[in-house]
Amino acid sequence: MADGPTITTIAERAGVSIASVSRVLNGLPTRQETVRKVMAAADELGYVRNAVARSLKSRRTHQVAFAMADVGNPAYLAMLRQIQPVLKAAGYRLVLHSTDAVVADEIDVLHSLGERYVDGLIMVPLRVTEAHLEMLSAARAPVVIIGQVPEGSRVDNVRADSHTGVGLAIDHLHQLGRRRIGMINGPLDTVPGAARAAGYRQALADVGLPYDDDLVQIGDFYRAEGRHAVTELLARVPDVDALLCANDLIALGALDVLRAAGKRVPRDVAVVGMDDTDLAAASWPSLTSVSLGSAERGKVAAELLLERLQGGDREPRLVTVPPRLVVRASTAGESDAQGKGNLE
Amino acid sequence: MADGPTITTIAERAGVSIASVSRVLNGLPTRQETVRKVMAAADELGYVRNAVARSLKSRRTHQVAFAMADVGNPAYLAMLRQIQPVLKAAGYRLVLHSTDAVVADEIDVLHSLGERYVDGLIMVPLRVTEAHLEMLSAARAPVVIIGQVPEGSRVDNVRADSHTGVGLAIDHLHQLGRRRIGMINGPLDTVPGAARAAGYRQALADVGLPYDDDLVQIGDFYRAEGRHAVTELLARVPDVDALLCANDLIALGALDVLRAAGKRVPRDVAVVGMDDTDLAAASWPSLTSVSLGSAERGKVAAELLLERLQGGDREPRLVTVPPRLVVRASTAGESDAQGKGNLE
Repeated sequence: MADGPTITTIAERAGVSIASVSRVLNGLPTRQETVRKVMAAADELGYVRNAVARSLKSRRTHQVAFAMADVGNPAYLAMLRQIQPVLKAAGYRLVLHSTDAVVADEIDVLHSLGERYVDGLIMVPLRVTEAHLEMLSAARAPVVIIGQVPEGSRVDNVRADSHTGVGLAIDHLHQLGRRRIGMINGPLDTVPGAARAAGYRQALADVGLPYDDDLVQIGDFYRAEGRHAVTELLARVPDVDALLCANDLIALGALDVLRAAGKRVPRDVAVVGMDDTDLAAASWPSLTSVSLGSAERGKVAAELLLERLQGGDREPRLVTVPPRLVVRASTAGESDAQGKGNLE
Repeated sequence: MADGPTITTIAERAGVSIASVSRVLNGLPTRQETVRKVMAAADELGYVRNAVARSLKSRRTHQVAFAMADVGNPAYLAMLRQIQPVLKAAGYRLVLHSTDAVVADEIDVLHSLGERYVDGLIMVPLRVTEAHLEMLSAARAPVVIIGQVPEGSRVDNVRADSHTGVGLAIDHLHQLGRRRIGMINGPLDTVPGAARAAGYRQALADVGLPYDDDLVQIGDFYRAEGRHAVTELLARVPDVDALLCANDLIALGALDVLRAAGKRVPRDVAVVGMDDTDLAAASWPSLTSVSLGSAERGKVAAELLLERLQGGDREPRLVTVPPRLVVRASTAGESDAQGKGNLE
């Protein structure tokens, strides 16, 4: 909004108060002289009036919805931070839906596209059910799905590649000489949990390490659950020398447990997180983490949606954003990366 | 949404697909038999159809806007996480505006209330200008301001009390025996910067410590700026024994600089942040921080707005949410709070 004419610049040009400009443009009773000045200034500056009248005429709402499980999750927040400016620059308002990963709520969001309260939707479902697919095929506005949808779905789709991401982490740990690499995962019936489990098996095979059930612990994607899972794994395999954690919160839980157990990080146990959130750089030692490109996925999703909104029909597109390993102190070999033990 | 009847529960009751229910409720062509089943099930379950038709009749949009400077800021995020469920439970959608703290953008949001695209607005302006006050007095929908507005403003207002919050931190540091307590602040022409500066002066006087210009460094509310400011202050006052930082990001920057300088935290220098974000618990040592009740302020603001939306006119209200000191390892005296130096 700051780029084009605003009511602030119109008020300056017309030499009247901002509130007066607002009254005139909103059609409220105002002195004739003020109306004349404001309209002249608005015309000179090329101000386009009355978004509502425009949207009634065009049957457009100039709103786009973003639906995700939990606005508190830093990965969704990273998406939101990229989606918001892309839409704002194109003149769209952002409607936010937090679905708590409840399928019925997600279906309701898809259904209410029929009410035409938005022109399009970006959605991040945690699991894609049959009901999702049914609703997507009947959706009355363009939809972009961030996440995994079955092959052949007629919908724009932006994906992470956590399978490859896990591989980058295992490769890194293997190169550092680690041979007993544990995995702390979230539930296997979620898309991320399943992909990371498969990636772990594959990556071990690729570097020639055996798969060992004892080195795998399933918990949930939170710090407290991470603590619990790492405690179990440590009790079972005291000489584990690396932990791949399925997200950064789990990895923070791992650092807590290792610290309390007197294990040095990374000398005794190297730790890797996933998602590369702000928390990774805030922790100490700072956390090596697999970036799954949340920000980039948000940006691509917003751009795909704008293409549909502005350009109309085309074949559905699938964009996979490649992962990237961000190496920090929790795995880095050099001792000087760790500071000088300056904590009492 | 999950509580009342949804299209998922209607589909179950009617024995048809979710997509069919969606088509019927959205008025799309469907077999007569299906229409009959769906309508019967919807009536039985007490489903209220067609939010758009309702809103045309009632002239309500069932949307509420939340406008803040930057969705990436954890303090705003903490508000958003509370605002969202309160509004959702009352049947309102949330429209998100990120204004980048640009006054013209904030004014534009207030102006567009005249377009009636939302029923109400919650706004967090970084500075309240004359233009804000003008627009507020002319606003065509209920507005709740989170932040400082001048006395006598006719608007619902939810405030933090960072002046008192700074006092809690100084008191705590003084009780721990610290006598050279530095302050790293953000710009003084912002509401938070000014309030924290005044609180610092007052709190020093209250505990009987002299105010010393050398102990104050102004930077900005980010980690890199925090690092820079702390470096300057350390060069000037090498024996500073505590740092009060105007937010958690600055405090993380302080930890970086102290670590690199070989200063032990908290033994040599105790560190306190403000805002008590997720980053405070993620850092190591974990960060003592002044909670200014961001989450609580969001919740109160949403409730005040709902009161107006549902109950109509009443006198404007002012609610001040009291601060709270959350003590963690960066100031805690006991050495066992610090772990055993398990980092190489």
